[in-house]
Amino acid sequence: MLANTFGTLFRVTTFGESHGDAVGGVIDGCPAGLQFSLSAIHAFLQRRKPNPQLHGEVSTPRIENDDIHFHSGIQHRDEDTVITLGSPIAFTVQNRNVRAQDYTTAIFRPGHADYTYFKKFGIQGITGGGRASGRETVARVVAGTIAGCLLEQYDIHVYGGTEAIHNIHGTHFNYAQAHRQPLYALDSDVVPRWQERIAEVKAQGDTVGGIARVIAYGVPAGLGEPVFDKIDARLAYALMSVGTVKGIEIGAGFTASSYTGSQNNDPIGEEYEQNNAGGILGGITTGQDILIRIAIKPIPSISKEQKTLNSQGEPCTLSIQGRHDTCVLPRVIPVLESMVKLVLADFLLIDRARKDIFSF
Amino acid sequence: MLANTFGTLFRVTTFGESHGDAVGGVIDGCPAGLQFSLSAIHAFLQRRKPNPQLHGEVSTPRIENDDIHFHSGIQHRDEDTVITLGSPIAFTVQNRNVRAQDYTTAIFRPGHADYTYFKKFGIQGITGGGRASGRETVARVVAGTIAGCLLEQYDIHVYGGTEAIHNIHGTHFNYAQAHRQPLYALDSDVVPRWQERIAEVKAQGDTVGGIARVIAYGVPAGLGEPVFDKIDARLAYALMSVGTVKGIEIGAGFTASSYTGSQNNDPIGEEYEQNNAGGILGGITTGQDILIRIAIKPIPSISKEQKTLNSQGEPCTLSIQGRHDTCVLPRVIPVLESMVKLVLADFLLIDRARKDIFSF
Amino acid sequence: MLANTFGTLFRVTTFGESHGDAVGGVIDGCPAGLQFSLSAIHAFLQRRKPNPQLHGEVSTPRIENDDIHFHSGIQHRDEDTVITLGSPIAFTVQNRNVRAQDYTTAIFRPGHADYTYFKKFGIQGITGGGRASGRETVARVVAGTIAGCLLEQYDIHVYGGTEAIHNIHGTHFNYAQAHRQPLYALDSDVVPRWQERIAEVKAQGDTVGGIARVIAYGVPAGLGEPVFDKIDARLAYALMSVGTVKGIEIGAGFTASSYTGSQNNDPIGEEYEQNNAGGILGGITTGQDILIRIAIKPIPSISKEQKTLNSQGEPCTLSIQGRHDTCVLPRVIPVLESMVKLVLADFLLIDRARKDIFSF
Amino acid sequence: MLANTFGTLFRVTTFGESHGDAVGGVIDGCPAGLQFSLSAIHAFLQRRKPNPQLHGEVSTPRIENDDIHFHSGIQHRDEDTVITLGSPIAFTVQNRNVRAQDYTTAIFRPGHADYTYFKKFGIQGITGGGRASGRETVARVVAGTIAGCLLEQYDIHVYGGTEAIHNIHGTHFNYAQAHRQPLYALDSDVVPRWQERIAEVKAQGDTVGGIARVIAYGVPAGLGEPVFDKIDARLAYALMSVGTVKGIEIGAGFTASSYTGSQNNDPIGEEYEQNNAGGILGGITTGQDILIRIAIKPIPSISKEQKTLNSQGEPCTLSIQGRHDTCVLPRVIPVLESMVKLVLADFLLIDRARKDIFSF
Repeated sequence: MLANTFGTLFRVTTFGESHGDAVGGVIDGCPAGLQFSLSAIHAFLQRRKPNPQLHGEVSTPRIENDDIHFHSGIQHRDEDTVITLGSPIAFTVQNRNVRAQDYTTAIFRPGHADYTYFKKFGIQGITGGGRASGRETVARVVAGTIAGCLLEQYDIHVYGGTEAIHNIHGTHFNYAQAHRQPLYALDSDVVPRWQERIAEVKAQGDTVGGIARVIAYGVPAGLGEPVFDKIDARLAYALMSVGTVKGIEIGAGFTASSYTGSQNNDPIGEEYEQNNAGGILGGITTGQDILIRIAIKPIPSISKEQKTLNSQGEPCTLSIQGRHDTCVLPRVIPVLESMVKLVLADFLLIDRARKDIFSF
Repeated sequence: MLANTFGTLFRVTTFGESHGDAVGGVIDGCPAGLQFSLSAIHAFLQRRKPNPQLHGEVSTPRIENDDIHFHSGIQHRDEDTVITLGSPIAFTVQNRNVRAQDYTTAIFRPGHADYTYFKKFGIQGITGGGRASGRETVARVVAGTIAGCLLEQYDIHVYGGTEAIHNIHGTHFNYAQAHRQPLYALDSDVVPRWQERIAEVKAQGDTVGGIARVIAYGVPAGLGEPVFDKIDARLAYALMSVGTVKGIEIGAGFTASSYTGSQNNDPIGEEYEQNNAGGILGGITTGQDILIRIAIKPIPSISKEQKTLNSQGEPCTLSIQGRHDTCVLPRVIPVLESMVKLVLADFLLIDRARKDIFSF
Repeated sequence: MLANTFGTLFRVTTFGESHGDAVGGVIDGCPAGLQFSLSAIHAFLQRRKPNPQLHGEVSTPRIENDDIHFHSGIQHRDEDTVITLGSPIAFTVQNRNVRAQDYTTAIFRPGHADYTYFKKFGIQGITGGGRASGRETVARVVAGTIAGCLLEQYDIHVYGGTEAIHNIHGTHFNYAQAHRQPLYALDSDVVPRWQERIAEVKAQGDTVGGIARVIAYGVPAGLGEPVFDKIDARLAYALMSVGTVKGIEIGAGFTASSYTGSQNNDPIGEEYEQNNAGGILGGITTGQDILIRIAIKPIPSISKEQKTLNSQGEPCTLSIQGRHDTCVLPRVIPVLESMVKLVLADFLLIDRARKDIFSF
Repeated sequence: MLANTFGTLFRVTTFGESHGDAVGGVIDGCPAGLQFSLSAIHAFLQRRKPNPQLHGEVSTPRIENDDIHFHSGIQHRDEDTVITLGSPIAFTVQNRNVRAQDYTTAIFRPGHADYTYFKKFGIQGITGGGRASGRETVARVVAGTIAGCLLEQYDIHVYGGTEAIHNIHGTHFNYAQAHRQPLYALDSDVVPRWQERIAEVKAQGDTVGGIARVIAYGVPAGLGEPVFDKIDARLAYALMSVGTVKGIEIGAGFTASSYTGSQNNDPIGEEYEQNNAGGILGGITTGQDILIRIAIKPIPSISKEQKTLNSQGEPCTLSIQGRHDTCVLPRVIPVLESMVKLVLADFLLIDRARKDIFSF
C-alpha cells in the first residue's frame, strides 16, 4: 500500500524503468495451490502490446517481445501448468529493442512526467519516461492476470472495453466480446469511424484519448471495508494510478449528480431493475455487477511542435519523432482490468478472514 | 491505510456509529509543535452542519451540537490555543438529539448501505445507517482541519465549493469566497435558481445531488509517490471514500478524453497557460493548482414511496419520513476539502523524509 | 503497523498521555458478532492495577479507577453482555487522581524517556512520562482482552506469570493458576522470598525487575507469515514495545545457543517430547505450546539520589519522591498477555483469509 | 510491513526459494542520488558465504557464486559506481550448483520448517527448505548494505560479531575489527578454542549455535516512533525474523532483570558512564551506542540419526547427509547487521519527515 506496492493481503510490488534492464514485479499473498497456465498469462499480456492485426495503425510499431521469466513462487506441474507455493511470485520481463536515442533529451516533454520526476528526484537524463512509462504496466498485467485466476475460482469475471475514442461513442455494449474486437470496442459498429478518426489525427502528428469501461460479473455481496477502504475508493485508487487516467465514475457517476433521489435509488428486489450504484453501496458490494467508467487522456507524445523548457529552464520548442501510439486506449484496457482484478482478489481474501466465524 | 485508518505518515483513524454514543478519531503522526485554535476547528466543523441561514431549507432541521472533546495529543497555551505534542490526537464528539424511532426498521432502504452492511456484518437493526452515515465525517473534518493548519505553514490552501446542483451549473468560479456563499456556491449568480429547484424537489419528497470542486493553491512541485501512490490516485481514493461521491475528475477529467494530445498537453513555461493536467503529471505535483471535480449523488432518504425488501427478504414499500437533507452537497464540501488536506499533509511529510539528502 | 497502531487485520491504535484527559484506544478489524462481558473486560483490566491484597507493598498506592467508556463498535444484548458490530471499537479511560506536582520538573529522569522525548519532539514539560508512561498500556489490555475473547472461540488460551523477581527464580511453573497467586507467581513457593526482597529494596528507596513468561495453549499449526512476519518476529515486536522489556526469548532462547543441534532439535512425533522451538519453526506455529520468556528491567523511578541533567543541560541530582512501584512486574504481566493475544488474533485472521481455498 | 516486505519508508521485499530459479529483492524508498559501489556490495555479500579461509571447516563446502543482477533503480556513473534513481531497486541472484537430491524427501526434518510450511501451505515436496532457507537472506544483505551506504552519509556505522560459540564466550570485544577475524570473533583470543570445539562437534555429525552482538555507532538521539514502533521493538522484529534467532537482548537485556533500579539507570550526563539501556529509552534513541545481543540456535541439519514423521504421518528416522554448516553463526552476522541497518535507515527517514518543521 505504499509507493510501488499495492494491496493488503494480495499485494503486488512493481519495478523497472522503461529503458533499463527489465521491468517486473513481486506478487505476495497469493494463496498456495492456485494453478494457472503460463501460456494463458502470456496470451493476456499480449493484449496490452501493439497489435497491428487488431488495432491497425493505432499503436507503435515497436515490437515488445514480452517473455515473462518467473523467478520464484511457483512449481511446474507440466511444461505449461504451474501451481503457486504461497511464497512471493517474482518475475521479470527484459526490455528489448531499446532505441534510447529517441528519448535522450534534456527537454521536458509537455504532458509527460519528465518535469515532475526531475523536481522530485533531482536526476536528469532518465530516458523514455523511466518509471512513469506505460512499460511499467507489464507487471500490473501479469499480477492482475494471476489475481484473475483466483477470482475464476469464485466465478468472478472482469471485462473491459472501449466506449469512446476521441468524441465518438459506442451505444450498445458487449463486455464479454470486446477483447476480440478491433480497438477492444464494446460496440463494434463504431469501429470504422474510430479507425478513420485515428488515421486523420495520426496524419496531423497528433494523438487521441477516449473512454474505457470495466465490468465485474459475479462479485458476491459483502466485499469492501468501511470507511476509508470502501471498495469504490480502492477501485478509484487503483485505476487513477494508471498513467493516462484522468477520471473515474462508479455506476451512474457524474450523471447521478443530475438525478433526483427517486431516480437514482436502485429498487432492492430479487431482480434489480437498474444499477445506478454500480454494484456498490456504502463502499460494499451489493451482488450486482460492478460498473466503472474511466477517462483516458490522449498520449502526450506528439510530433506537432510544442512550447516547453529545457532542464536549464530555458524556453524551447519540441517535436517528438519516436515510435508512439496514436491512440493508446486499447493497450490500457488490460491494465484497467488487471487493476480491478487486483482489488477484487484482495478484498475477497480480506472478507474471507472474518467471514463465518459467527453465525447469525 | 486500512479500513478505518487513512494515511501513511499523517494518519487518521475514525470511529463511531451515527446513533451510538459518539463519533471521533485519532490523528497519528501530526508533527509536534503545531499550534492551532480550538475555536477555528470548531468554526470549520460548523461548515458541515445544517446551516439554515446559509443554506435555507436545504438541510435537515436536526441540530447537531458538535462539541469536540480532545482527549490527548495537545497542550493548552491559553484557553483557545493548543500545541501538538507529537503523540496521537484523540477526540470524540458526542451524539445528541437522537431520535432512533425514525430509523428502527428492518426494511432495507434503497440507495443506503443497510443491505450491504447486513450482508457483510450479519447484524440486523443497526439504526440510522450506523457507520455508513454522514455523521462519521465529523472526524474527517476535525482531522482535515488540523492537517490544514500544517499546510498553512507551507502556504498551501485548499478551497472547495459547489459547481452544480441538480443540472444547474455555475460558470465563473470564485474558490476562495465560496464558503461564504449560500450553498457554498462557486458562482453566486446561480444561487437563486438552485434555491428554487431545491424547494420544488423538496415539495415532491425527493432529493438532489450536484457537482463539487476542490482546488489546492500553493502546492510545491514534487509531491506524490510513483507508481501506485500517485497523488491523483490517493486523492481519488480519499474522495471516493466519502459516502455520496460517485465520480472524480483530475484537471480536464472526462473532457480530456475528447481532446487531441496537442490540445490536452499543457505547455511548460514560467507561466503555465493552461492546466488540463490539474497540477499533476505522472502522479507528481507540477506546482500548478490542483484541480478536482467531484460528482455527488442525491441523498437516498426520500419520502416518495420506493420498492424494497425487508430483512426477511419479502418485497415491501418504504416511505422515509425522518429529518433529512434535500441537498446534502454543501455539507459535503468541507469533508471533501478535509480529505484533500489529509492527502496533501501526508505527501508533504513523505516528501520531506527523502528531500535534500543529496544535492544535484 | 505504524507508531501508535499495531496489527494487520486485527488492529489496535492507542492514545493518551498519562496525565492528560484520558487514555484509550480503537480496535479495528474485530469480526462482527463476537460477544463479550463488560465486567470480564473490567476484571481483566484490574489485573494491571496496583492490588495491595495480591501484591502487598509492591505497587504504588495511587488508586486508578479504570472505568472503561466504550464509544462505538458494540451493541448491548443485556446490561453486561455486548456484541461487536464489525465497526471500530473505541474506548476511553479517564485519568483521575492526578497529582501533577510529582512530575513537574525540567530535570531529565535517568532511565525514563524524558530526555529522548525531548530530543525527538522538542516539547518540554510533558509531565509524568506523558505517552511513555505505563498508563498507556491500559488500552493494550482492553484490546488484548477482546482479542482473547476471539481466541477463546478457537480454544486458544494465553497465560502469563512471574518466573523471577530480582535474582530469585521459581522452578516449577503453573501457568493457568499464576494470575491467582501473589505477584502472579508461576511458582508460589518463592513468593515469601520475593516479598522479603521487595521489602528490603523498597526500604533502600530502590526498585527491582524480574523475568516474566507467557504461554499460549491450543494454537493450531500454520499461523505466521514468512519471511519478515514470522510469528516469533511479530511476538518479539509486540513484546519489546512494552516499556520495561529489555529481552525476549522464544522456546529455549539463549540456552539454545549452547545446545548442539541434536540436543536442540525437537523430535517430530505424535507426542512431542520437548519444545525447544517454543512452538514455532520457520516462523510458523507447530501446534505445540508457544513459550516466551521476557526480561523486565527495574522501574527507573527511585528515591535514591541520581546524577542527571536539567533541560538547560546543566548537571544536577534528582531524588524521585512520588508514588511509584517497587516491583512493577506483576502489573506488566497482563500487558504481555495482551500483546500476545493481539498477535495471535491477527495471525488467526490472516491465516483464515487464504485457508481452505484449495484442497490438497 | 507484511509477510515478505519489511519497512515503512525504506522498504525491502524479498523473494525466492533456495532451490528455485533465483532469490532476490526489491528495495523501495531509497532516496535518489545515493552513490554506491557494486564491488562493495559484492564484497559485503561475500561475508555471508562459506569462507574456508576465514572460517575453516565451519561452513558447507557448497560454493555459492552470488552474482547480483540489478534490474532497475540505478544508473551507472562508471563501471563500478552507480547512483540511485529514487525508483525501486530490483535485483536477482541466480541459484546455482543445486543438488536437489540431497533434499528430495517427504520426511519432515526436525528443527526445520518442513512440517510447519506443509501445515500452512499444504504443498509437499518443496525441496531444501524452500523459502525458509538461509538462502533468502542474500536479499536482506544486499538491501541492508545499500541501507548502510545511506547511513554512512550520516556517520552511522553498524558492526556485528561473534561473542560465543556453543558455550565458549569471548570477554573483550572489538566490534570494528570483528569482520576481519576468523569466525567474525569479537574477541580473537577464543578463536582456537572455538575451532577445536567445532571440529569435535562436526566429527559427531552434530552442529553448534552461539551468541552474536551488533552495535550501532553514531546514531543520533531521537530515532524511533512511540508506542508500538519503538526502535527496540522494530529491531527485535527485524532480528527475530532471521531464521536461526531465538533470543534478543537490548543493552543489559536479561541481566537488567536482576539489577536494582539504581544499578540499571544510566546517569544522564555529557559523558555517559554506562549504557544498560543499550542506547534506547522509551523506544527512542539516546545518542549512545545501540547494543544488541542475539541468540543463534544450532543449525538443525545434522547427520546424527533423529526421530521424526514422514508426510504420511508415519514415524521414521532421519540422518541428513548433504552439505551443511557445522556452525552457521559467522554467516548470520552480516544478515543481522543488515537487518539493523534497514531499521535505522527507515527510522532515519521517518524522523526526517517531521523534523525541524517547528523550532523550539
